[in-house]
Amino acid sequence: MELMTAAEIDARYHFACEVAQAAANRAYGFYQQRNQLEVEHKGSDLQDVVSIADRTVEELARSLIAERFPADDFLGEESGGGNEQARCTWVVDPIDGTSCFLNGLHNWCVSIGVIVNGEPVIGVVYDPNHRELFRARAGQGAFVNDAPMRVHSGQHVRDGVMGVGTSHRVTPETFVPFISALLHQGGMFIRNGSGALMTAWVAAGRLIGYYEPHMNAWDSLPGIVLVREAGGITNDFLSDHGLINGNLVLMANNRVYQQLTGLITQKVT
Amino acid sequence: MELMTAAEIDARYHFACEVAQAAANRAYGFYQQRNQLEVEHKGSDLQDVVSIADRTVEELARSLIAERFPADDFLGEESGGGNEQARCTWVVDPIDGTSCFLNGLHNWCVSIGVIVNGEPVIGVVYDPNHRELFRARAGQGAFVNDAPMRVHSGQHVRDGVMGVGTSHRVTPETFVPFISALLHQGGMFIRNGSGALMTAWVAAGRLIGYYEPHMNAWDSLPGIVLVREAGGITNDFLSDHGLINGNLVLMANNRVYQQLTGLITQKVT
Repeated sequence: MELMTAAEIDARYHFACEVAQAAANRAYGFYQQRNQLEVEHKGSDLQDVVSIADRTVEELARSLIAERFPADDFLGEESGGGNEQARCTWVVDPIDGTSCFLNGLHNWCVSIGVIVNGEPVIGVVYDPNHRELFRARAGQGAFVNDAPMRVHSGQHVRDGVMGVGTSHRVTPETFVPFISALLHQGGMFIRNGSGALMTAWVAAGRLIGYYEPHMNAWDSLPGIVLVREAGGITNDFLSDHGLINGNLVLMANNRVYQQLTGLITQKVT
Repeated sequence: MELMTAAEIDARYHFACEVAQAAANRAYGFYQQRNQLEVEHKGSDLQDVVSIADRTVEELARSLIAERFPADDFLGEESGGGNEQARCTWVVDPIDGTSCFLNGLHNWCVSIGVIVNGEPVIGVVYDPNHRELFRARAGQGAFVNDAPMRVHSGQHVRDGVMGVGTSHRVTPETFVPFISALLHQGGMFIRNGSGALMTAWVAAGRLIGYYEPHMNAWDSLPGIVLVREAGGITNDFLSDHGLINGNLVLMANNRVYQQLTGLITQKVT
C-alpha cells in the first residue's frame, strides 16, 4: 500500500475540521426545530434512535469528503461502509448523542476520525452547543479551539470525574459492576449521552478517564487520537476487527488507566 | 402563622427569576476563568468540592434577597440556615453541579426554591450555558423561558431517558441496583452532574424521570415545583425533616412514577 505523505495527512486534518463544523451547523439548524423531527428506532431497542437530521448531516459530510478526496473510503454510522484494507478511511458519526439531540439535552457533537494505513491519525469532535472544536493529528498534539489539551493529572480515580457509557448492545452485568467498583474507590461518574464528546473531555483533562464496554468506530476513533495526543493512553480499539465490529473503550492517563483495568470485568486488548 | 397573599408570592416569583439570572451571570464570569479558581474539598469526600465562586455567588443571592424581603428566611448550600417553622424560606444553591463547573463540563445551574408556610411554591433553575430559565409558581404552570413545559408522555421507562444522581452520602448499594433494574427494563440514563438541572429537564419533558437516593433541599426543591406544575408527580421531599436533612427524590409522570417505585430499593414517602 502506498504510504501517505505528511502533507496529504495535513490536508485531510484541516478539511476534517471544516467538515465537522459545516456538519454541526447543519445539525444545529435541525436541533432548533427538533420537536418537528420524526423519530425512528433502530431494531427493537427503543433507546437507539435516528432521524432525518442524522441522515442529512451524514450525507452532507460524505459528499463533501467524496468531492475533495474521491479515492478515500468512508464509514458512516447511518450509511455503513468500512474496509480494513483501505489506504485511508473517514469514519463519521454525523450526530453522536442522537438521543440527547432528539430530547433536547445539550450534549451531542459531530465526530470525525481518519485512519491511514490502519492507524488512527486524525480525530475531530465539534460541539456546536458550546462552540468547541476538539482536534488532533498524530504527532502534532491536541487542541480545543486553539488551546493545547492535556489529560487529567490525577493519580487515582477519586481525584476526578470519570466519563462512562453503555448501551443495550451489552448486558447490564457487563457495565454495572464497574459503577459499583468506581464508587467504592471514592470515584464518581457522568454519562452525558455522547461518548465522542466525553472522550474529547478526557483529552481536555476535564474527565479523568472514560470507559464503555462497547463502542462503534464512529463514536470512538476521534477520541482515541485526541487522548493519545493529549498524553493519555487508550486500548487497541482496532484489534479484533474493531473498525467493523466495535470494541470496548478505555482511556486515561497512564496511572489511572492501570487502575481502571483492575476495576472492569472485561479483558482489555 | 400569617398566610401569604397571592401578590406577595408573585412578587417573590418574579424576584427569584431576577436573582437566578443575576447570580448565574456572576457565576459565568468565574466559569470563564475556572482554571484560576482554587478548589477546596468538603470533609473527606474528594468528590464534594467548593470554590470562591460558590461562596461569592451565594452571598450575592443572599444579599439581594435580604434587601428586598428582609423578614424572609434563607437556606444556602454554602452558608447553611433553614428553619422549618419560618413563614417563608428561600432555598438557594448558587452553583448546582460544582464539580462540572470546576472541571469545565457545561452542565451546572443556579437553583432557587421558595417555601411558604411549609409548602414549596416557587421553583427557578437558570442554566447560563444554554440561556434557559426554568420557572414555576404553584398554580400557575411551568415554563422554560416563555414556553409552557409538560412532563414526558411515555408510559414505560424504555420510552425515554432517565436522569439519575448519586453521591458519597449514600452507599453504592443504595444506588447501583437501580441502574441494573432500569437497564434490564430496556431503560437508559444520564447523569450530567447537576441534579437541579436534570429535574428541570424532567419538567421540560426531555427526561422521562429522575431518581437520586439522597438530595439536599437546595438541589431538589425547585425541581419539585417545576415537575408538579408540568403535570408530573414527586415524592414528599419535605417529610422527615427533608428541609434540614435532605431526602430521596423521585419524579416522573404518574404511570412512570409507579413503575419507578418498583425499581428502587428505598422506601418512598
